[in-house]
Amino acid sequence: MTGNNARISHPGFAAKLCTGAQAAAMIEPGDTVGVSGFAGSGHPKVVPIALAERIGQAHDRGEDFQINLLSVATAAELDSALVAVDGIKLRMPYQSVAAMRNQINAGKIGFTDTHLSHVSSQVTAGMFGPLNIAIVEVAAIDPDGTLLPSSSIGISKTWLDQADKIILEVNSAQPDGFRGFHDVYYGPTSPPNLEPIPLTHPKERIGVPYLKCSLDKVIAVVETDIAEQTPDFRPPDADSQKIGNFISEFLAHEVKQGRLPKTLLPLQSGIGNIANAVLAAIDAAGWKGLTAHTELVQDYMLQMLRTGTLAFASSTAFTVSATAQQELFNNLDYYRERVILRPAEVTNHPEVVRRLGCLSMNGLIEADIYGNVNSTHVMGTKMQNGIGGAGDFARNAYITFFTTPSIAKGGAISTIVPMVSHVDHTEHDVHVLVTEQGLADLRGLPPRQRARKIIDVCAHPDYRDALNDYFERASASGAGLHTPHILPEALSWHGRFLESGTMRA
Amino acid sequence: MTGNNARISHPGFAAKLCTGAQAAAMIEPGDTVGVSGFAGSGHPKVVPIALAERIGQAHDRGEDFQINLLSVATAAELDSALVAVDGIKLRMPYQSVAAMRNQINAGKIGFTDTHLSHVSSQVTAGMFGPLNIAIVEVAAIDPDGTLLPSSSIGISKTWLDQADKIILEVNSAQPDGFRGFHDVYYGPTSPPNLEPIPLTHPKERIGVPYLKCSLDKVIAVVETDIAEQTPDFRPPDADSQKIGNFISEFLAHEVKQGRLPKTLLPLQSGIGNIANAVLAAIDAAGWKGLTAHTELVQDYMLQMLRTGTLAFASSTAFTVSATAQQELFNNLDYYRERVILRPAEVTNHPEVVRRLGCLSMNGLIEADIYGNVNSTHVMGTKMQNGIGGAGDFARNAYITFFTTPSIAKGGAISTIVPMVSHVDHTEHDVHVLVTEQGLADLRGLPPRQRARKIIDVCAHPDYRDALNDYFERASASGAGLHTPHILPEALSWHGRFLESGTMRA
Repeated sequence: MTGNNARISHPGFAAKLCTGAQAAAMIEPGDTVGVSGFAGSGHPKVVPIALAERIGQAHDRGEDFQINLLSVATAAELDSALVAVDGIKLRMPYQSVAAMRNQINAGKIGFTDTHLSHVSSQVTAGMFGPLNIAIVEVAAIDPDGTLLPSSSIGISKTWLDQADKIILEVNSAQPDGFRGFHDVYYGPTSPPNLEPIPLTHPKERIGVPYLKCSLDKVIAVVETDIAEQTPDFRPPDADSQKIGNFISEFLAHEVKQGRLPKTLLPLQSGIGNIANAVLAAIDAAGWKGLTAHTELVQDYMLQMLRTGTLAFASSTAFTVSATAQQELFNNLDYYRERVILRPAEVTNHPEVVRRLGCLSMNGLIEADIYGNVNSTHVMGTKMQNGIGGAGDFARNAYITFFTTPSIAKGGAISTIVPMVSHVDHTEHDVHVLVTEQGLADLRGLPPRQRARKIIDVCAHPDYRDALNDYFERASASGAGLHTPHILPEALSWHGRFLESGTMRA
Repeated sequence: MTGNNARISHPGFAAKLCTGAQAAAMIEPGDTVGVSGFAGSGHPKVVPIALAERIGQAHDRGEDFQINLLSVATAAELDSALVAVDGIKLRMPYQSVAAMRNQINAGKIGFTDTHLSHVSSQVTAGMFGPLNIAIVEVAAIDPDGTLLPSSSIGISKTWLDQADKIILEVNSAQPDGFRGFHDVYYGPTSPPNLEPIPLTHPKERIGVPYLKCSLDKVIAVVETDIAEQTPDFRPPDADSQKIGNFISEFLAHEVKQGRLPKTLLPLQSGIGNIANAVLAAIDAAGWKGLTAHTELVQDYMLQMLRTGTLAFASSTAFTVSATAQQELFNNLDYYRERVILRPAEVTNHPEVVRRLGCLSMNGLIEADIYGNVNSTHVMGTKMQNGIGGAGDFARNAYITFFTTPSIAKGGAISTIVPMVSHVDHTEHDVHVLVTEQGLADLRGLPPRQRARKIIDVCAHPDYRDALNDYFERASASGAGLHTPHILPEALSWHGRFLESGTMRA
């Protein structure tokens, strides 16, 4: 508790002030808990940690205590604390913390991987049972009882609507200057009553700048004053820069051909270093007045908003390094004119992505010669992070790019394989595949032409002959010549890696 | 030519009257040709056949002549005639004719499998190059130059908009009484100018009851008088009836739990005998006042509209047997109040499917123990028909059902396998799996719980032990316990079938 009551301007909410430990004591074993936040921003910082402590104590007493955790927060400290005390039975829809990943792959935690655009609708439809508790961070509670969201919206709107009980964390380390960044759409939430989501441009506002919250459901309000810690991005490496340049050149070509407007279409960019490098390449190539409609405003997007490369960004979260955060907080008035944060259920909605015609760019774990993409399972069995929003964008984008270095683990892994060991994005949804070797434009091509192009253009030279050999033998094997495969051999590269530590023959 | 000029009421169009052979002579080698029709209804019946003849003659003279054929028509006579003369270089997005399938799998024809909801946007975006010619069947050309569509709309609207040249077939065997059935939406077609598609209920009209057509682009008008021939459906077999009953019972349960309204949500039902059996089971179970939003109005949907089980059907085509066609033609006034035909780009649009909250029911070739679905590739390499609209509905439906008998080829094939040999629908998009053995409700479950349920509930008893054995050994193998697999063995059931003719060990 900081005692900084200035952020809680409604007496009804103020009356529920308590400590994190007191709030955590209101959560019961077996509860399904929805936690705010998106990719390390806007998550509650005190109650989950206190809950972990409580669970640990219960376990010390020999009592059962686990919860189901619904969250896109993927904040290391949150997931780690709850994992450390074996406090989670089921996790959905996305995570990216090593401790959590390890427990999922050890079979200790059930993980239901879910398209982010489906989270709200599936929880609302009751697919995960009742949502017992929501824990939501906000920047302020206003006199009319509305909530000022903090650095992300994510699924908070749905959690507040659907939860039986609500715990709020009011974080005064989040600037009050976030006021005006948010746009929360409050249309109907379930069929048969759904209506069009009226968003037609990244810059449009279709909702209200606050979250609604029924005071009756609020069981605790906890004050915090804890800044977010996001590690600095590494500068793009040479391979990532090549990938970025290929994409920027391709986009310029499409404009020249009249297939894209001069200011392109709204960019969607996944998380991570390659994504940042692609943005850096676009920033360096002289584009002006572009827009983004994407899940995260990361460091390079802020820079592009400063340079004018980007005129506007529609998003659901700021996920920025400490350095970029300082720049953001120092210039909130500037960015408020150029950024809107929305609920993920709007940002990722197929209706919106399709209508805006996003140019979608996401990473992957491996792709196969026909362009099927695995973005979740390492060697077919181990969950990495989850599909996140990649499927929402890949399926519905105007042009769908997937990017990857052509090799991993110092060359022991070819990211282009005969057959992927798990499929998240089918060939239908993969238009352009890009590695540091080159960009394969697969649009309109049937499978064998895709294979030729992917092998010739994207595969690493060290693996190209082996891929061609597989493809040629598959084509001569008597298998169907639509998508030739030698099934007993299709996954052998993975088997070889698991046995010998390399995919090399 | 029938000389039945009554169907062509515009002199400008009438002036372009010619024979099928004359029209076919206007198509050049290498042309990309978009043909109207949807699943055996509404396709042009004369010009493609005449074109096949022309191509055959060119080949006899030693000349090259192939076209790229864009069509969902899947009318046996159309695809067969063009295949017989080796007239097709590339085919998209869907086919279901044995002759075509054989040539695709022999590597003679390139086939670009495409989500039906993507056909219009991808062709409009230029992904298939220019659309040189559209051949579109209509029931009449009206005095104002608008076109009365026939028994389907399919992609006709896009073909007419995008093609450089248009050939119309005016078929007087299609009843003029189709007038008033159609609703053609003419909103903007490309980002950044797209707007919400205003459809919020299957019964709504959002467009005009005709197709627009620029006379300038019309190069030929051909009169025909050829009835459509669709084989009678087989009555549902015992297994299909079981599947239908499981689904009907499940829906009743969902209503009881308050998760579905009493009149459900709009039904989407794939093509074929199981789909018909599911509808028959729903029809027999006493439901009243339901709606459908689906690609095809088949025989059972007509029956359900007669009995009142179904109050309304929104669709893109009538695909009915000769018997049902007679019933339809005799009662057009009755059905006109209860059926709307729309462009496939509206029917299948993610925005519309998601908003209406369809209950989506589609067949498959095989599913794996984790609920990934292969709906296109036999034994991983041979194209069956194409993904069609299954992905549009499965990804966006309120509840997604996939149905299949648990065995095929007299038990030589288990349709539940350790790992599917091709993925069209990822586990994220498969909510409920149904065989004649039972219905597995997979909603919200993580992969290993899905596996237990699929094996126990859906697999055929003859294969259950082998599946459990695989799953248990995979779980003990040291692989990741999120989605345990033994990669060298994962596709061995297919290998065994290809070698020995059975998946049995």
